[in-house]
Amino acid sequence: MKKYACLATCLLALSFPLCAQKPEALDYNMYQRIRSEGFDHSHIMEYASALMDGIGPRLTGSPNLKHANEWTRDQFTSMGCSNAHLEDWGEFGLGWRQINTWVRMSAPDNAVFIAQALPWSPATSGPINGQAIWIEAKDEKDLEKYKGKLTGKIIFFGPMRDVKPVEKPLTKRNEDADLKKIEDFPVRVGEQHEDFLAGFIKELTFREKAGKFFADEHAAAIVVPSRDGRDNGGSGGTIFDDGGTGMGWFTYQREHAEKLPIVVTAIENYGRVYRLLKANVPVSIEMDVRTEFTGDHEHGFDTIAEIPGTDPALKDQVVMVGGHLDSWASGTGATDNGAGTVVAMEVMRILNALHVQPRRTIRVALWTGEEEGEFGSYGYVKNHFGFAPLSTAPDQLALPEFVRKPGGPIQIKPEHAKISGYFNVDNGSGKIRGIYLQGNAQLAPLFKEWIAPLSDLGVNTISVRNTGGTDHEAFDSVGIPGFQFIQDPLDYSSRTHHSNMDLYERLQPADLAQAAVVEAIFVYNTAMRDQMLPRKPLPHPELDEPGKAPLKNVMPGVVAAAEEQKKDATPEKTPEKK
Amino acid sequence: MKKYACLATCLLALSFPLCAQKPEALDYNMYQRIRSEGFDHSHIMEYASALMDGIGPRLTGSPNLKHANEWTRDQFTSMGCSNAHLEDWGEFGLGWRQINTWVRMSAPDNAVFIAQALPWSPATSGPINGQAIWIEAKDEKDLEKYKGKLTGKIIFFGPMRDVKPVEKPLTKRNEDADLKKIEDFPVRVGEQHEDFLAGFIKELTFREKAGKFFADEHAAAIVVPSRDGRDNGGSGGTIFDDGGTGMGWFTYQREHAEKLPIVVTAIENYGRVYRLLKANVPVSIEMDVRTEFTGDHEHGFDTIAEIPGTDPALKDQVVMVGGHLDSWASGTGATDNGAGTVVAMEVMRILNALHVQPRRTIRVALWTGEEEGEFGSYGYVKNHFGFAPLSTAPDQLALPEFVRKPGGPIQIKPEHAKISGYFNVDNGSGKIRGIYLQGNAQLAPLFKEWIAPLSDLGVNTISVRNTGGTDHEAFDSVGIPGFQFIQDPLDYSSRTHHSNMDLYERLQPADLAQAAVVEAIFVYNTAMRDQMLPRKPLPHPELDEPGKAPLKNVMPGVVAAAEEQKKDATPEKTPEKK
Repeated sequence: MKKYACLATCLLALSFPLCAQKPEALDYNMYQRIRSEGFDHSHIMEYASALMDGIGPRLTGSPNLKHANEWTRDQFTSMGCSNAHLEDWGEFGLGWRQINTWVRMSAPDNAVFIAQALPWSPATSGPINGQAIWIEAKDEKDLEKYKGKLTGKIIFFGPMRDVKPVEKPLTKRNEDADLKKIEDFPVRVGEQHEDFLAGFIKELTFREKAGKFFADEHAAAIVVPSRDGRDNGGSGGTIFDDGGTGMGWFTYQREHAEKLPIVVTAIENYGRVYRLLKANVPVSIEMDVRTEFTGDHEHGFDTIAEIPGTDPALKDQVVMVGGHLDSWASGTGATDNGAGTVVAMEVMRILNALHVQPRRTIRVALWTGEEEGEFGSYGYVKNHFGFAPLSTAPDQLALPEFVRKPGGPIQIKPEHAKISGYFNVDNGSGKIRGIYLQGNAQLAPLFKEWIAPLSDLGVNTISVRNTGGTDHEAFDSVGIPGFQFIQDPLDYSSRTHHSNMDLYERLQPADLAQAAVVEAIFVYNTAMRDQMLPRKPLPHPELDEPGKAPLKNVMPGVVAAAEEQKKDATPEKTPEKK
Repeated sequence: MKKYACLATCLLALSFPLCAQKPEALDYNMYQRIRSEGFDHSHIMEYASALMDGIGPRLTGSPNLKHANEWTRDQFTSMGCSNAHLEDWGEFGLGWRQINTWVRMSAPDNAVFIAQALPWSPATSGPINGQAIWIEAKDEKDLEKYKGKLTGKIIFFGPMRDVKPVEKPLTKRNEDADLKKIEDFPVRVGEQHEDFLAGFIKELTFREKAGKFFADEHAAAIVVPSRDGRDNGGSGGTIFDDGGTGMGWFTYQREHAEKLPIVVTAIENYGRVYRLLKANVPVSIEMDVRTEFTGDHEHGFDTIAEIPGTDPALKDQVVMVGGHLDSWASGTGATDNGAGTVVAMEVMRILNALHVQPRRTIRVALWTGEEEGEFGSYGYVKNHFGFAPLSTAPDQLALPEFVRKPGGPIQIKPEHAKISGYFNVDNGSGKIRGIYLQGNAQLAPLFKEWIAPLSDLGVNTISVRNTGGTDHEAFDSVGIPGFQFIQDPLDYSSRTHHSNMDLYERLQPADLAQAAVVEAIFVYNTAMRDQMLPRKPLPHPELDEPGKAPLKNVMPGVVAAAEEQKKDATPEKTPEKK
């Protein structure tokens, strides 16, 4: 019923375009109160230190993430939210944590390496020592020549890359020209990702087979080189531990799990071994990987809390705000996505501290499983709002969900009619410069009014563009307005995104405080306006030409990392999050 | 006798200034042959990989440095040099090497730290685990409050610093404006370093006492934060292990040696512990420092080799070229000063390959002990050419040599009259852009002629300035023309100088090849011209007003590091090597 009400509202808006452009009644007093609370009484760095320093990395399935789920829930309660609780989004897979990892060269010289276990790596049985061997193989055939030669060996797997000097600042802000580029809408007709995905699937399939081969050949462990970051940020001690460097698909599932201990090492350390081996100098490696599996069938949970609506006619409607709480494992996930998490917490703290009386309910959600496939947000959206069924044809069932073809029209649940919109922060620590409309151009005049009083904070840009790679996509995929903000990039893509250096030091307090103020205002406005946010037409993925549909909406972190790696090789095009 | 001949030559040059400016007879054919050999047949990266990857760090007193001394000697022999040998410059102190170091946080979370033992750190007795404590102490009085509270503790010693984003490129080249600045001679009258040194001596004296206090209190180990590099390069996994972070003076001498195992850790790792402790969260640290003392009275050696002179009247005269072979321990000393070493090796290889017949003898010297006080070059100069005696007053004898006052006029040996000049490379991997004249302005017209044909290689700048901090100072201190080239800075001060990232990847092959060609030409020209290089008047340190003399010439690496640390706090002034 509410669904039809919403449709009627939308139709009304579409029928009276002049009416839709009437100026929004904005509460400038509340703008000011939010600014004062956010800038003069910020708690954001306390949240940040407690989460990043106190709890640490939050790999999905890990004990740390459980701790973070509980801690954020309790923080929401203690700041005055209602109904703070955890919602199960389903089974994830392995529970895992790293206890310690070290790797050193023990011949021809002693050298301490910078290295960490890749997520879900099994442990060594104490320190092990073995001869290093560099594997030159692009496909299964190439592996054959190593048959019978790998017993006890430490496998160096992956090409050595050029390590260039850092000739640009690792951190940067959006200049006017960058924002203008983001504003321009790129018309893309018939574009699809299949070629990229096909290559990526092939590569990962080979890797999984190679991992199995090395284990079958009784190798002792695997060392992979760190990928690069933007502008050669993947050097100087910064290593990336995201899926792009693992041995296969979905290593968090027992049936795909890494067979051998596997570590990622600084490119310079990898390079030294590589060059020595190429020069026929025998290299010995000693290493210790202490990791622990804490469960085989761990579930994932989203942290949810609310400020209840107060308008009898609107209080069962909801505006949502959030970010993902999970992270990779080698850093503490400070910018990905501790930043979005503490910004969302601060948004709720500000609104609680001001005792706002929102007409609609304001609900915060801290997702998990984002890095592996936006599982927490998609799971929540499926449970509450709707989902796009996937093909169940046998060939399709053999594929991972995020590349599977649609199997029918989107299925809607009653709550779908009650959610006005969702706001997400997941582009690092940079301040907000504007917002992506996800193709919904009718929002431009509305949001332009909203940001006019935020011009002095640097918020000036409305882009109709789609941006991908994070949890607003779950909402967008079923036709709910879901937004990601435009943020200053800082050192997100160069140094912090999925790296051992995604640590508290990368957080910029002033930027985060600004982001919380801006997001709080968007959330508040959405909660207070007479109407819900206008929607795009409901998507019909099942009508897209098979194989031609952009697969943008269900692309997990692992693909994003691979895309970034690919992007590193070519000039940077769009500043969108990957 | 030769000494008087030289003085006569100098007087002659001074008496006939027009004559001194007559154009130099340059061998343009040899310029071209050196370019072709250096650019088309370079061996420089082979030398670099063998030295940095194969041998590794070359801390003075270490087995690796002995290995490097022998390897370079043998390389000189096999490339055709005569008289390749090692020369003992005296007793250094402790022999030491790092076998492995790891540090992790074990509570409240598990976290792998980036850390390495400071040079000459004793070992732990296997992995140890202890509570972390941050010491807030600026002087001995402040330490009192920790009495009885440190047993078994892991000491975090040193202030936490701001960790700023990398807003400038970490690598840079000299632009025209930079070179113009280097060209301008800063007239400094009466300037002296005493204030800085007094503070520095006080600080180090306190540190040594603190180290002893922690040991007496039965603490388990010490963790210090890495200092910063230029433009915030000391972050992201790059740590510096030079003396600026140790506990005291001359820890390579048994009587000053570190009492407790001591490691330097990435500033972000240090920061996490610091913030947790400040928030009263108990922190446990597990760590293992595996180091080994390989001798208490190790001597230091310079590698020496020659291409004999062929002119009967000049062949007992010599032109010298070199750089220091030793390094710090956490990287492989690729730019400091593997670069200067392989450039000097390549200079000798080029000249051998071309079968040059130099009129004077060309002698290469690879110094050691540079990082601790330019011991190898000062020792060699003292043994062969002369030295400035130091005060033997009781108060002065209590001070380390490099701050002791002069005790009399410079004492000259006969070889002093037979050395034309010394050329040194020790500013990292950047190509040569010109040369510092060490205040000897009469060389400007001469060297301008020499570099005119090198303009297309970017060599255009003659600076009368002094530059300090490396081995040409030993020559300059006794009035022998000693030069350091102007080089592009690249990431020397930001990322590589005394860091764990001073690795092969930081070497720029084209820059090094250029430097070898340019230096070979300077050496060749010096060997071939009719006269020796004109000299400045012999210094008279004993006549300088006591306490007002600049102490520039005997300042070891440890002071240089501290100066750099101080410089980090203030805008960069001169691009001179520190």
